[in-house]
Amino acid sequence: MESFFTFLERRVSDSSSLLCIGLDPHIGDLPSPTAAAALRFCIDLVERTAPCAAAFKPNAAFFEQFGAPGWDALKRVIDGIRERSRHLGSMIPVILDAKRGDIASTAEAYARSAFQELGAHAVTLSPYLGRDSVEPFLADGEKGAFLLCKTSNPGAHDLQDLPVGVAGEPLYVTVARLGRSWNTRNNLGLVVGATQPEAMARVRQAAPELWFLAPGIGAQGGELEPALRAGLRRDGRGLLLPVSRAIARAADPGQAAAALRDEIVSIQYRLAGSGRA
Amino acid sequence: MESFFTFLERRVSDSSSLLCIGLDPHIGDLPSPTAAAALRFCIDLVERTAPCAAAFKPNAAFFEQFGAPGWDALKRVIDGIRERSRHLGSMIPVILDAKRGDIASTAEAYARSAFQELGAHAVTLSPYLGRDSVEPFLADGEKGAFLLCKTSNPGAHDLQDLPVGVAGEPLYVTVARLGRSWNTRNNLGLVVGATQPEAMARVRQAAPELWFLAPGIGAQGGELEPALRAGLRRDGRGLLLPVSRAIARAADPGQAAAALRDEIVSIQYRLAGSGRA
Repeated sequence: MESFFTFLERRVSDSSSLLCIGLDPHIGDLPSPTAAAALRFCIDLVERTAPCAAAFKPNAAFFEQFGAPGWDALKRVIDGIRERSRHLGSMIPVILDAKRGDIASTAEAYARSAFQELGAHAVTLSPYLGRDSVEPFLADGEKGAFLLCKTSNPGAHDLQDLPVGVAGEPLYVTVARLGRSWNTRNNLGLVVGATQPEAMARVRQAAPELWFLAPGIGAQGGELEPALRAGLRRDGRGLLLPVSRAIARAADPGQAAAALRDEIVSIQYRLAGSGRA
Repeated sequence: MESFFTFLERRVSDSSSLLCIGLDPHIGDLPSPTAAAALRFCIDLVERTAPCAAAFKPNAAFFEQFGAPGWDALKRVIDGIRERSRHLGSMIPVILDAKRGDIASTAEAYARSAFQELGAHAVTLSPYLGRDSVEPFLADGEKGAFLLCKTSNPGAHDLQDLPVGVAGEPLYVTVARLGRSWNTRNNLGLVVGATQPEAMARVRQAAPELWFLAPGIGAQGGELEPALRAGLRRDGRGLLLPVSRAIARAADPGQAAAALRDEIVSIQYRLAGSGRA
């Protein structure tokens, strides 16, 4: 058996990429507001960007908004990624961005939905309900989860930055430590926004070996080099960079993904050369 | 326009009930593990318990586990509740227990899914991403949301009880205060477990006028009178008690619901008589 992050690392090697292509069929980006249009939008993006994708990340919300046909489209998108992976000869992990979080018996049903029914390899989760809400997603080491830790939205400040305990360190640092202690099967990572490199550096310090899913590059305005400097592990990996609109809305998404992948690689080399990794 | 909680209060009056019937089609409770069986299970429960239901609360996970057909069954269950309400001559609110929580543009898609596509009247939400992740669900005052505050599962302790700030009050009290400040349209409530009356009393102190959705009665072992004493507002309302397995697994779910509704009413009277409310 191979752990989720061993699987992801193989794909990172095969693609020389830390890019995670977000599949977010916003209604405004579709020719018509239908599940069929969402499916076509995503499959086209998968076809064009697969060679540069370390992972794909469909967000459940943009499929749920179309009801049952949307849910069917989501399953077909994941099937399409599996098929494209076979042609490439390298399986591409699918991270279902669902941000679920419920008590254990309910979490088991969500895990069944994500892993068995849809065929995703990992999910994003909220930490608010604690360990027993996360464990059903970690029981099978081949499947993984990314725990929300420090997000890149304006409201992140409301809870995540609250000073906790005697030391008064921010809540997100506590969540990073908890996540680290729950990662007994090499299948738990953290969601850490790329827009605040100082916060990311603190999370890296608290969880030196965990993988981060770090949104915020592109549409949300995060800069690449500070994020890589703050977030990469000492081995020069451990950071997955989701991008959706910046690639989906490019004139040529395949070319935009390749250019971004290459830019990341060149920064990785530069940081390695300067003794960063 | 009527706010979500004005709508709920009317139904509470019509039914003399604070019971919220949970619709959780656990696979183990179904004759076969299919969406069709889940639909029949729920519709049967709706038929039998509707007269005693202040609200119904389907949990999305138990439908999602069946993929697109499950999503379709969920929609039919909500349609069925609307139809049953018409026969009763009193609309019964549907709270979609989904515990969603994502950045604003994604939250808009989730709100569209819950309110427009499925036809629910309210949802449960995670607070971890802060205000902008909650606002899209509150924009229309006729629709409501319950924010996870203090839950009844073992892992609740991991984050929710952490001491925050100079005063060192638990995180869940901070969430209660935030929720109170975000409730500008009388459509935001809190999820507060019924199993810990002391914690519930602290939340009631921090948010005197908010509605609580208080799971934990029945299968999870919470006792009714201490919960009502701690959680009722000064007007003797403000507390919605979800029960699922204890009613669904009863020999006669309709009778079990009526008995529980009556027990709650008698405790309400007793507390009112003792000057509690």
